[in-house]
Amino acid sequence: MTESSGNPLLAAIGPSAIRAMYERRRDTSIDLSMGQPTLAPDVEPFGEAMDWIRDNGAPYAPNFGLLELRDAIARIYGASEYDASNACVLNGSQEGIYLAVKALLDPHRDSVLVTNPSYPSYARCCDLEGIAHREVRLDASDGFAVAADALLEALEPSSRMIILGSPANPTGSVIEERELRRLADGLAARSGTPVWVVVDEVYRELTFTGRPYVSLVDLYPHTIALHSLSKSCALTGMRIGFAVGPAAAIGAIGRAHALMLMSVNVFAQHVALAIVRDPKRLRAHFDWYAKQRQLVLETAHRHKLPIVEPQGAFYTLLALPERWKDSQAAADQVLDRFDVVTVPGSVFGAQTEGHLRLSWSAQPADVIEGLNRIAEFCAARA
Amino acid sequence: MTESSGNPLLAAIGPSAIRAMYERRRDTSIDLSMGQPTLAPDVEPFGEAMDWIRDNGAPYAPNFGLLELRDAIARIYGASEYDASNACVLNGSQEGIYLAVKALLDPHRDSVLVTNPSYPSYARCCDLEGIAHREVRLDASDGFAVAADALLEALEPSSRMIILGSPANPTGSVIEERELRRLADGLAARSGTPVWVVVDEVYRELTFTGRPYVSLVDLYPHTIALHSLSKSCALTGMRIGFAVGPAAAIGAIGRAHALMLMSVNVFAQHVALAIVRDPKRLRAHFDWYAKQRQLVLETAHRHKLPIVEPQGAFYTLLALPERWKDSQAAADQVLDRFDVVTVPGSVFGAQTEGHLRLSWSAQPADVIEGLNRIAEFCAARA
Repeated sequence: MTESSGNPLLAAIGPSAIRAMYERRRDTSIDLSMGQPTLAPDVEPFGEAMDWIRDNGAPYAPNFGLLELRDAIARIYGASEYDASNACVLNGSQEGIYLAVKALLDPHRDSVLVTNPSYPSYARCCDLEGIAHREVRLDASDGFAVAADALLEALEPSSRMIILGSPANPTGSVIEERELRRLADGLAARSGTPVWVVVDEVYRELTFTGRPYVSLVDLYPHTIALHSLSKSCALTGMRIGFAVGPAAAIGAIGRAHALMLMSVNVFAQHVALAIVRDPKRLRAHFDWYAKQRQLVLETAHRHKLPIVEPQGAFYTLLALPERWKDSQAAADQVLDRFDVVTVPGSVFGAQTEGHLRLSWSAQPADVIEGLNRIAEFCAARA
Repeated sequence: MTESSGNPLLAAIGPSAIRAMYERRRDTSIDLSMGQPTLAPDVEPFGEAMDWIRDNGAPYAPNFGLLELRDAIARIYGASEYDASNACVLNGSQEGIYLAVKALLDPHRDSVLVTNPSYPSYARCCDLEGIAHREVRLDASDGFAVAADALLEALEPSSRMIILGSPANPTGSVIEERELRRLADGLAARSGTPVWVVVDEVYRELTFTGRPYVSLVDLYPHTIALHSLSKSCALTGMRIGFAVGPAAAIGAIGRAHALMLMSVNVFAQHVALAIVRDPKRLRAHFDWYAKQRQLVLETAHRHKLPIVEPQGAFYTLLALPERWKDSQAAADQVLDRFDVVTVPGSVFGAQTEGHLRLSWSAQPADVIEGLNRIAEFCAARA
């Protein structure tokens, strides 16, 4: 703004680099950039929500969300003793990231640990609130796995929150049970004010390890788990997310939520209610993604593309040829010369510089064609 | 939280006193407390949104909202030269209040003027951001009318925003065109950084002055007008609000919105699109409220109840008998002994202590019975 600077913290935050790549796509482009399904959502839950609106109009939902929905989410995704008081309905998990940072921390005192790489929003939400954050580096050599010891060693006196994703964006890595237990034990053994762990579990329903998903929410009492119907049910635009955690923390998050935007859309909450009443709907798209993942692995293998084998989510990281140290330049070339939209690894942190993030939520033919072109790009002389 | 204080600004904000009264209602209670319509919304726009979802799924809406919707809102509610770049779709006007404060001000430097009385959320959003606010007193003797001179005189060097409502909650008063022009001229004549004026216009479609609505957005370039379909179209639960103003300010508000919660529900935006494509739908409930207002005036007159004649919105302030200086105690009695839920005037500021806010969005029979009982309460010995 010419006439004033407004909020200096907001002004200092750059535009979303993921969106920026997406917005450069052409009509002809193959889009391997965006973090959203191309599968169509089941419209039946919408029909159930419509019936509710016809009977009840569209009144305010309760600030923290519909009680039955909170209760179901707490039971599905919470610790064994959790009930509705442990869950809050939010405008997508994005609001959960923001509010965990906003509500649970004191900018004058507290700092946050994030991994490098990680979903950029974690650090950006801290930046918006003026909360310091430092990075724990993950390494390409072991598939960017999260190690508890590295997190525990990085804690400083001011550290009051760790933000993790599992399955993670952009790496697709799932935190091992052994590491979660080690982290829980290590944090529990510390004296002083407990450290919150925010675990972004929005890709939980898309986990391909073959083992049951283990959530930190069952192992460590100061966990805030974030969930969403966006990825599992192809409902990104419906903005239905959840925070699950200790009642006092959920209370703080919900109070901030109410002050900022009152409540979540009541129609969307009834769509969600129809889904959780029949929870197999949460897994309805799993088989499609499992097959898609196989297709990606096979296609990449055929081309000898060095990718990180994803354990979950619908991304894979491609290690670029040596001459492409600058992943932004590589993504530019892939778009300009091969008409494929990707996201440069540098967007997620210095540790994924030299990589491209490829989303494989596109339709199968597009994913194959996109990977074929990227193979061509990798083989080409610079 | 026992284990930590978290955000001290959030912790210092008390619960919503309006919600608190509402939550004390019994099944038998007549509810004259809540700020939401009891009229049923038109379901046709929902049908149009459903058709869109069937054809397109539920992908992310753009961060700032659907372009056609932004464009329509800018044309309906904006200054004559405004286009889509001057409007942003938000999760209700509540998010607009929060984001105007959050995005356009610097907590270390800027302060805000609000009126007393006013909708409590204005001051609460400032409190959440650590932004100082001071009050300009309105007076019962002239129906709590807003006078430009009083605002201009109250400006301090740090003042960077004035937040007003017109029609206002809880007074129902509409700011006179003369006062708006005087305010615009007075602010324009000041040197230095301009002062933002946020005008909450969510009740604009429910204005009963008989004169066309005049918006400050047409008179003063640094105006942020907040709108919503909640009240005009009985869609409180759909959380569809808009901020309209200079493109740079809308840019800052939209960027904060994207960081915090990505975008507004795409289904709700298509409901809104169906409404603005046929803008007479914005006024569909006007006649019902105009009639309801007459009913309130007649019933109050019959009982000789001293009420502030509302120029807009669906509230009226009742001046309590002398012995009820404490409006919370009066509201408690009205609920406990007469089973009518009201909101104590003290909730909105010291200037409306000794008053009750009566919402008349309830069904006609309930409004009459509620007023009858309140008349009985006023006539009763303490």
